[in-house]
Amino acid sequence: MAKNVGILAMEIYFPPTFVQQEALEAHDGASKGKYTIGLGQDCLAFCTEVEDVISMSLTVVTSLLEKYQIDPKQIGRLDVGSETVIDKSKSIKTFLMQIFEKCGNTDIEGVDSTNACYGGTAALFNCVNWVESSSWDGRYGIVVCTDSAVYAEGPARPTGGAAAIAMLIGPDAPIAFESKLRGSHMSHVYDFYKPNLASEYPVVDGKLSQTCYLFALDTCYKYFCHKYEKLEGKQFSLSDADYFVFHSPYNKLVQKSFARLLFNDFMRNASSIDDIAKEKLGPFSSLTGDESYQSRDLEKASQQVSKPLYDAKVQPTTLIPKQVGNMYTASLYAAFASLLHNKNSGLAGKRVLLFSYGSGLTATLFSLRLHEGQHPFSLSNIATVMDVAGKLKSRHEFPPEKFVETMKLMEHRYGANDFVTSKDCSLLSPGTYYLTEVDSKYRRFYAKKDGKCTACENGSVVNGH
Amino acid sequence: MAKNVGILAMEIYFPPTFVQQEALEAHDGASKGKYTIGLGQDCLAFCTEVEDVISMSLTVVTSLLEKYQIDPKQIGRLDVGSETVIDKSKSIKTFLMQIFEKCGNTDIEGVDSTNACYGGTAALFNCVNWVESSSWDGRYGIVVCTDSAVYAEGPARPTGGAAAIAMLIGPDAPIAFESKLRGSHMSHVYDFYKPNLASEYPVVDGKLSQTCYLFALDTCYKYFCHKYEKLEGKQFSLSDADYFVFHSPYNKLVQKSFARLLFNDFMRNASSIDDIAKEKLGPFSSLTGDESYQSRDLEKASQQVSKPLYDAKVQPTTLIPKQVGNMYTASLYAAFASLLHNKNSGLAGKRVLLFSYGSGLTATLFSLRLHEGQHPFSLSNIATVMDVAGKLKSRHEFPPEKFVETMKLMEHRYGANDFVTSKDCSLLSPGTYYLTEVDSKYRRFYAKKDGKCTACENGSVVNGH
Repeated sequence: MAKNVGILAMEIYFPPTFVQQEALEAHDGASKGKYTIGLGQDCLAFCTEVEDVISMSLTVVTSLLEKYQIDPKQIGRLDVGSETVIDKSKSIKTFLMQIFEKCGNTDIEGVDSTNACYGGTAALFNCVNWVESSSWDGRYGIVVCTDSAVYAEGPARPTGGAAAIAMLIGPDAPIAFESKLRGSHMSHVYDFYKPNLASEYPVVDGKLSQTCYLFALDTCYKYFCHKYEKLEGKQFSLSDADYFVFHSPYNKLVQKSFARLLFNDFMRNASSIDDIAKEKLGPFSSLTGDESYQSRDLEKASQQVSKPLYDAKVQPTTLIPKQVGNMYTASLYAAFASLLHNKNSGLAGKRVLLFSYGSGLTATLFSLRLHEGQHPFSLSNIATVMDVAGKLKSRHEFPPEKFVETMKLMEHRYGANDFVTSKDCSLLSPGTYYLTEVDSKYRRFYAKKDGKCTACENGSVVNGH
Repeated sequence: MAKNVGILAMEIYFPPTFVQQEALEAHDGASKGKYTIGLGQDCLAFCTEVEDVISMSLTVVTSLLEKYQIDPKQIGRLDVGSETVIDKSKSIKTFLMQIFEKCGNTDIEGVDSTNACYGGTAALFNCVNWVESSSWDGRYGIVVCTDSAVYAEGPARPTGGAAAIAMLIGPDAPIAFESKLRGSHMSHVYDFYKPNLASEYPVVDGKLSQTCYLFALDTCYKYFCHKYEKLEGKQFSLSDADYFVFHSPYNKLVQKSFARLLFNDFMRNASSIDDIAKEKLGPFSSLTGDESYQSRDLEKASQQVSKPLYDAKVQPTTLIPKQVGNMYTASLYAAFASLLHNKNSGLAGKRVLLFSYGSGLTATLFSLRLHEGQHPFSLSNIATVMDVAGKLKSRHEFPPEKFVETMKLMEHRYGANDFVTSKDCSLLSPGTYYLTEVDSKYRRFYAKKDGKCTACENGSVVNGH
């Protein structure tokens, strides 16, 4: 079996168009700090009419292949995670096949994985399992997470965002899975879902969703610790991992989550809990599970106690989620990309725990072990290629009015046919794909800015254009 | 690595309500034989207002566990393939978690896989790979294929159908994968898709879809033969497999597909092609690929030549698809179930090739090797448990008028909220789940006929009811 299977390389893309949360607060007439401190968010990226989950994923996969100089013929599998459904039958993966068909490579397994923000993690596990299975043929896999998170006007709207991430999967990876260390919690619940098929917006029960998230985290952590203890013969605690990466719908929930893990350690009487923590959390030890999720005092005390550890083990993961917003399936991996950006080669030898959550609900806590790796598949090169600082710096701020106007246009366009876009790609970087047209048969057409080729130039017998 | 991983057990469910294709022909004013001979179909099963893809999958998974006496705690993974999107974010898999939550088992990986009729095959591959991977924890996996295929009034309507299939996955299986023998073809094409999100009906280009299907079959067969030849050091031909199972939107396409494979063998100068076949197919050897897909004469000649082989190697797979109709993701596995029903223990030692096709498009030709196996996981017991003959016999025929009326009601209900169904389960067998209500928040509620428990009785903190 292939060894140290995991992530060899990464690329991230987010729209260059964004709005400041502070400006949005003022525009919405919300109290000052409601979005910036209450949610813990700085900015929100969004797709204009020329971008969508397909254009973003075309961009990020093309960029991944180019920047790491991977021949498209070397790809044997491509898995996509997304909850932004543009077509209920045709997968986003089939759109990405345009990149590979040009090179005559159509023997590429994998389709779309769907369950809210967890689809990307499902896609990642599936791709890693493929490399470890007897059906692996020695080629690389690619995992794509792509989503555009938009909400109806109201309190949830500032928790939007948009991005696409591509990950190259193979053996001997600098970012390797510790597959035996994994705990999942999956359950039937209506916390966030999209049953109104004619609308892009979800139905959200924010309070329930937050409780579900924390309950799932507790349960996954319990299973995770149990598996660790069985395998290693000693107790697991927060001190046994160097960094913690959380699915981040908004940063405040990440702060609460890490505090909740510390509370778990306290309740499990972990050796890592010092006397001060014991004293401060003591009053909450008799709470029932339900009470503990509702207690604001516990929330406050555990966040206070965990603050120094949070700054060391979580804060380096929060950059992109705070600057771009909720990216659904890409959110967890954008947080991980932030860690690579902030610490890159300093991560060699470290263990990183990731918590993936998708409403509905599906959740897994899993472990990665990092090594510096060989160029081009090294931690430092991945950080260089992703160029997070450069990408954040070259964005274009929109005033809230223009953001709201864009959302209105997108509502109108959602599920529509027979229109052409403005084709205005002036704000996009060279190499970015953009939507030009949806014809009367709902077929979508894309072009590539400054590219010598478009994605739509194939002409075989099975070409439906 | 686990050995001989594959299908240990199977169960199939299809609605008891059906219409005769012959009656539908007359009702539609179509020429006699258009559906029965032209499409090669006998009957079409459909969901009434009390059934959907979720109720069918709840029924089939519950039945699988009961009939093979599998403790729900023994399940470590559950993958669902479907293209019948009821919610764009929440997976069907999370609905099925209700069965396992009752037993305290929520540590079950897997979500929904989506690409038209191929989603079930993607789910199956993912589950098999999991058992072969380092993240396997020794428990069983379950794969569910569930779909309701409905079409707008017009020529495509008689190609509908509905069913759900559940498969238990693990090592030492009577139905084992030959994972090294596999050829895929994936490509960006608009042959059948569902971009009109407010409608349950697809956009279909029937002629293009048929060409795509046959082109994908040719390409997969080419890759498959190439891999076989590399591995075995000898040419592959139709004589090297005992049975051929095809995704079956309608039986006529299955007939054409097998004939096409024989034409492939002829063009590759396979040793299995006799002189008579050579003579009959000779005139077509100079056709270009495109011409060969359009030639009615070639179609006729190759079907004629392949008829005896078709009767032996394909006909035993066609029972359920002809009687139930197109079941999308379940279609291929219903064809395979037909083979188990017809040949059961006679299949020990045989090689079966399966061709999975999903529009958009994704396709794989793969190989299974069958062994009798140990009870309850034996070929003969699987055939007994599925009781295909009993299920077909106990169905209720609807006149076309009532079928059309049901389709109208379902159109009205699609994507709707705040309604209760008739709760009329008089036609359903005991143990069948059925839809009772969709509330104002679009939450769906199900009950089980004659069951002591319903699927909706959990009451934890994360329960959104």
